[in-house]
Amino acid sequence: MKGLWLENNQLQLRNDIPTPEPPPGEALVRVLRAGICNTDLELLRGYYPYSGILGHEFVGVVEQGPENLLNQRVVGEINAVCGHCRFCLSQQSTHCENRTVLGIVNRHGAFAEYLCLPIANLHTVPDNVPTEVATFTEPLAAALEIQQQVELGANHRVVVVGDGKLGQLVAQTIALTGCELLVVGRHQDKLANLEARGIKTGLATAVKDRYFDISVECTGNPEGFAIARRALRPRGTLVLKSTYAGNLSLDASSLVVDEITLIGSRCGPFAPALQLLATAQVDVQPLIQARYQLSEGLAAFAHAQSRGVLKVLLEIG
Amino acid sequence: MKGLWLENNQLQLRNDIPTPEPPPGEALVRVLRAGICNTDLELLRGYYPYSGILGHEFVGVVEQGPENLLNQRVVGEINAVCGHCRFCLSQQSTHCENRTVLGIVNRHGAFAEYLCLPIANLHTVPDNVPTEVATFTEPLAAALEIQQQVELGANHRVVVVGDGKLGQLVAQTIALTGCELLVVGRHQDKLANLEARGIKTGLATAVKDRYFDISVECTGNPEGFAIARRALRPRGTLVLKSTYAGNLSLDASSLVVDEITLIGSRCGPFAPALQLLATAQVDVQPLIQARYQLSEGLAAFAHAQSRGVLKVLLEIG
Repeated sequence: MKGLWLENNQLQLRNDIPTPEPPPGEALVRVLRAGICNTDLELLRGYYPYSGILGHEFVGVVEQGPENLLNQRVVGEINAVCGHCRFCLSQQSTHCENRTVLGIVNRHGAFAEYLCLPIANLHTVPDNVPTEVATFTEPLAAALEIQQQVELGANHRVVVVGDGKLGQLVAQTIALTGCELLVVGRHQDKLANLEARGIKTGLATAVKDRYFDISVECTGNPEGFAIARRALRPRGTLVLKSTYAGNLSLDASSLVVDEITLIGSRCGPFAPALQLLATAQVDVQPLIQARYQLSEGLAAFAHAQSRGVLKVLLEIG
Repeated sequence: MKGLWLENNQLQLRNDIPTPEPPPGEALVRVLRAGICNTDLELLRGYYPYSGILGHEFVGVVEQGPENLLNQRVVGEINAVCGHCRFCLSQQSTHCENRTVLGIVNRHGAFAEYLCLPIANLHTVPDNVPTEVATFTEPLAAALEIQQQVELGANHRVVVVGDGKLGQLVAQTIALTGCELLVVGRHQDKLANLEARGIKTGLATAVKDRYFDISVECTGNPEGFAIARRALRPRGTLVLKSTYAGNLSLDASSLVVDEITLIGSRCGPFAPALQLLATAQVDVQPLIQARYQLSEGLAAFAHAQSRGVLKVLLEIG
């Protein structure tokens, strides 16, 4: 089959990849659409070691699997877990000690005609959710993870730093909590997407120092972290939603003096993410910047790597 | 009066300091004993700007103040607060926006014959607590702050990194929660203090990676931070109890992947600290390394600055 294969920090379009055969407990999924995520770009830059087919945001159709899923459109949780380690046994299976991760850790990903995932990872896509909208389920679930970790409500002042694709999803989900929300970014056109939904936005200069209860860092760069930090009141919480290239240098003493909480946030729950898409409470259409065929995958990556680009989708099947 | 005065990173013993006159709402306290803390050493090194009398760990006798406190032995909370800012009004007065802090921020400290503090800051010392034991109330309260921030109990695995004076107090308070506790340090003699109380100790090599639910960093150096970090399981919590010289460089991406929580921890509650001392649930005597008269204050600081020294006390009145 065809697929985008990463090896030694080089991405290749290959036509000779064997179609996978699902092991027991897994389904074979024919991929329809997939989205390029910043993590894919980081894997390409070699921030983490990975060889194989890239991609973890997808919608597909089950071709081999249990009766009730056959020919259904599905999305899939990306962590394939062991089910018996201490994390699996304590309902924290996204941290399974023996996990493989679709297109990220020891498991071929979604930028190919077919993929395999454990049956338990699959969620059927509601009929009223268009396929390309459903490709946002995984990053939307990641945005919702914040609300699993931090209480957010009408009494809270929240700032989201970053107007990129993740920041936009985070902002839309947080807006639903009824909190006082500000989103800061560098791109007027992207901020306009959010303004159109009634979300207050601004440039970094709009952030009042020591005003916010919670800040969410969605830029992955030190400047974004600095804004998220100075925005916080004492005893505030800074959610790290993006990964960083290399180490981050921070004033740890000020975290002590102000008793700040920093919390890393990764994968989240798929069911409520699908629900938000099905009820149109989140609008992902403005985030779609471009669509490419799988055979144009290298061009798709080049586009996704340009500064300020939102979501680039691959149309595969 | 006599006092240890910091100015331009120079500590001087002065005999010409005017005895303070307590403003309304404050008491005049004759200082009996005071303890030298790492924060004092950091102020001396110029990590924070401060001029005036140093010192914030003390026991004294009230000479001017309300009837019920007159001639009583007292300890004092170090944050003098405004009572009307958003933090004061939300029971977070240690973060008062307008605070002064005894011997640290805009308020003369305890290394002198007299000090002033708001009456509301003072706590009488139970009769059965010796004066020099009561000088540990402030750092013991700071150790207890951890338990205000993080749930600790029999089901938790906790590692305390650092066997210095703060680490020892933190370890003794955490041991009382019944958790599985390990304290790691570099000094066999200091660890022996804790072993004698039935607390498990070891060198850094004794820390099993990704094993602990909670780690408490009490060293203030990057090596200590690295141990505290690698000790944590995914979704674990790292408590920052020490301040750091300069910035700390850390792998923020790994905090995201493992969804680690970092939480800064500063001043804590005095009443339970005094209670622990009154009931002898914490033993501070082994932490006292040396005693000096106030007139020997410069020698006391030189001693306190030597590597591996525990608590140096000043006998003032």
